[in-house]
Amino acid sequence: MDTMMAIIQRYQHQRVTLVEAGATRHQSIFNGLKALAGDHTDIKLSTPTVVIIHDAVRPFVEEEVLMRVVTAAKDYGAAGAIRPLVSTVITPSADGCLDQSLERAKHRASEMPQAFLFDVIYRAYCQCSDHDMEFGTECLHLALKYGQTKAKLVEGSPDLWKVTYRRDLYAMESIIKDKISQQICVVTDTKKDAVCISFLQELLKKQLEVQGSSVTMCPNAQDLQKIFLGDCYNFVCINMMTCDLHQTRKLVDGLESTAPCLLYPLVVVSVHFLDSQNISLSDGMKELMEMKDFAKEVQKRNVFLYGVLIYFTQDDPQQLQEDIGQGATIIAALIKDRNAGLTGQLLRV
Amino acid sequence: MDTMMAIIQRYQHQRVTLVEAGATRHQSIFNGLKALAGDHTDIKLSTPTVVIIHDAVRPFVEEEVLMRVVTAAKDYGAAGAIRPLVSTVITPSADGCLDQSLERAKHRASEMPQAFLFDVIYRAYCQCSDHDMEFGTECLHLALKYGQTKAKLVEGSPDLWKVTYRRDLYAMESIIKDKISQQICVVTDTKKDAVCISFLQELLKKQLEVQGSSVTMCPNAQDLQKIFLGDCYNFVCINMMTCDLHQTRKLVDGLESTAPCLLYPLVVVSVHFLDSQNISLSDGMKELMEMKDFAKEVQKRNVFLYGVLIYFTQDDPQQLQEDIGQGATIIAALIKDRNAGLTGQLLRV
Repeated sequence: MDTMMAIIQRYQHQRVTLVEAGATRHQSIFNGLKALAGDHTDIKLSTPTVVIIHDAVRPFVEEEVLMRVVTAAKDYGAAGAIRPLVSTVITPSADGCLDQSLERAKHRASEMPQAFLFDVIYRAYCQCSDHDMEFGTECLHLALKYGQTKAKLVEGSPDLWKVTYRRDLYAMESIIKDKISQQICVVTDTKKDAVCISFLQELLKKQLEVQGSSVTMCPNAQDLQKIFLGDCYNFVCINMMTCDLHQTRKLVDGLESTAPCLLYPLVVVSVHFLDSQNISLSDGMKELMEMKDFAKEVQKRNVFLYGVLIYFTQDDPQQLQEDIGQGATIIAALIKDRNAGLTGQLLRV
Repeated sequence: MDTMMAIIQRYQHQRVTLVEAGATRHQSIFNGLKALAGDHTDIKLSTPTVVIIHDAVRPFVEEEVLMRVVTAAKDYGAAGAIRPLVSTVITPSADGCLDQSLERAKHRASEMPQAFLFDVIYRAYCQCSDHDMEFGTECLHLALKYGQTKAKLVEGSPDLWKVTYRRDLYAMESIIKDKISQQICVVTDTKKDAVCISFLQELLKKQLEVQGSSVTMCPNAQDLQKIFLGDCYNFVCINMMTCDLHQTRKLVDGLESTAPCLLYPLVVVSVHFLDSQNISLSDGMKELMEMKDFAKEVQKRNVFLYGVLIYFTQDDPQQLQEDIGQGATIIAALIKDRNAGLTGQLLRV
């Protein structure tokens, strides 16, 4: 309960009420329903028409699926998401041999979310036997058995799968990394070199298969807020002909005040274009070496900072194009992996 | 067929015979069995006592499970791996509503591998109906229906799951990366600084949760062969007080001639300890800049090369310890991610 309370407070959820769990799945659900029915003296909630039941181990439920089960529950009294079976289901005999195998096409896996008219499911739980309460796993079954309500079955998406094994945690992590790599914001303080910047942007879009990307000039707090609400977790800060971290610092400060509590790590890549004819590498490097300390500091607030150095020769445009290509590969790799161990590194094209 | 032939040739498999697939799962299996029965004029194989049937989409089958199903097949005539059901299985009615829900504890998911006495399964396939051949999914069912053989059910491991959705590919990739990060070989050409090297080794073991790690002095071809056979895909090459890539080049050359066809990318991290009192950074850097070209060259042969520079002060042992700690974090990150986009980079502690 303490951990959940801390999460609710940290992310400032306004409309979440906690109810203590029971010893089994059905007991926990029943406790939640009782709170909604007004049976709790210390929890004041109004009783809803429709209630949705979901599993925390299915974190990728989409609003559309919720809408579909709610709509069907209004019409049928109960509704649940289903998926095709991946393996054939069999019945073992008492001695551990095959007794029967079910025809896979005739059956479905029952997933979550499920939705019910509140009265249907609440009355079912009030009547259900101790045996059902202890060994049952299926709410739709209770609605049928005790509420004579035949649930409508609704196609769910593959993302509704139950995070069960270690491999599911791996899959979950990759899906999240995929999702938060879909938007990139390129930040620059100059209108010069726009060709160069938009070329980099195009390459990044291709390499990351991004859905959205934008170029913003010196964004203020309001701009950043808007970019955040568009689910952007990736910022590429372009610095032309300078090793100075001034612009990158300004961006990171802006990001931190806009989104003080980040659910996922933000990636900021500080890209420095240096012209070999005007700046000697060793002159510039000293400043960029500060990157490590700065990165360490901002990592505490869940911002992963990396540096990329593109050291080019002005009079060789083809080489510059190749260099930008390599830069895009490195930036894409940093965004995809979000590797905490490599923050503060200055990578060279 | 061409793709499969190319794989067999590339990895020099000696005991694999290809048989053309059919239009359905059962037809494909039957084609394989016919080849073993000697029905093919152009494929000469001896008929086995026991045959194992497996799915390519379950790539993580362990030898132990194969042994279990084979042993059970010898005793019972047929055997298959099973797993507990993750979701409740239901039967929909014709109008898409819940007709019945099965008690989850009484059923199991039928997985692969399965094993059969050759005669049992071959005769079952010879007798089975067109409907079974087209719509069936379960070999154990055929053995029961046409061979009156009740299969023994054997507990499988969670790793036997079927790679079906995009998330399963993600999980698969992470599992492989996990597995090939379990062994590290630290290579050095000096007995000096053994304390320093074993400290780094200890930290790496902790961070990667490795099962095995070894320190090898100047390994020759025979040593490398042995290390490979121990499933080692990670090499950390320690270079004391030098920016020279000589030792790293020698190691990579040795690795390439030992294992010309790599199934997974090898990671080689070239670690350079430089004493700030004896070597100026800019003097040494020039040589290390060659890393990029060298890395590009070896990446074509599936070797991912990265550089790590630990620039320390001899008279501050505590700082050195911290630096080695940071070095271990970076090396662990490189080994875990195996990021193709970051090869040739020189990372600094």
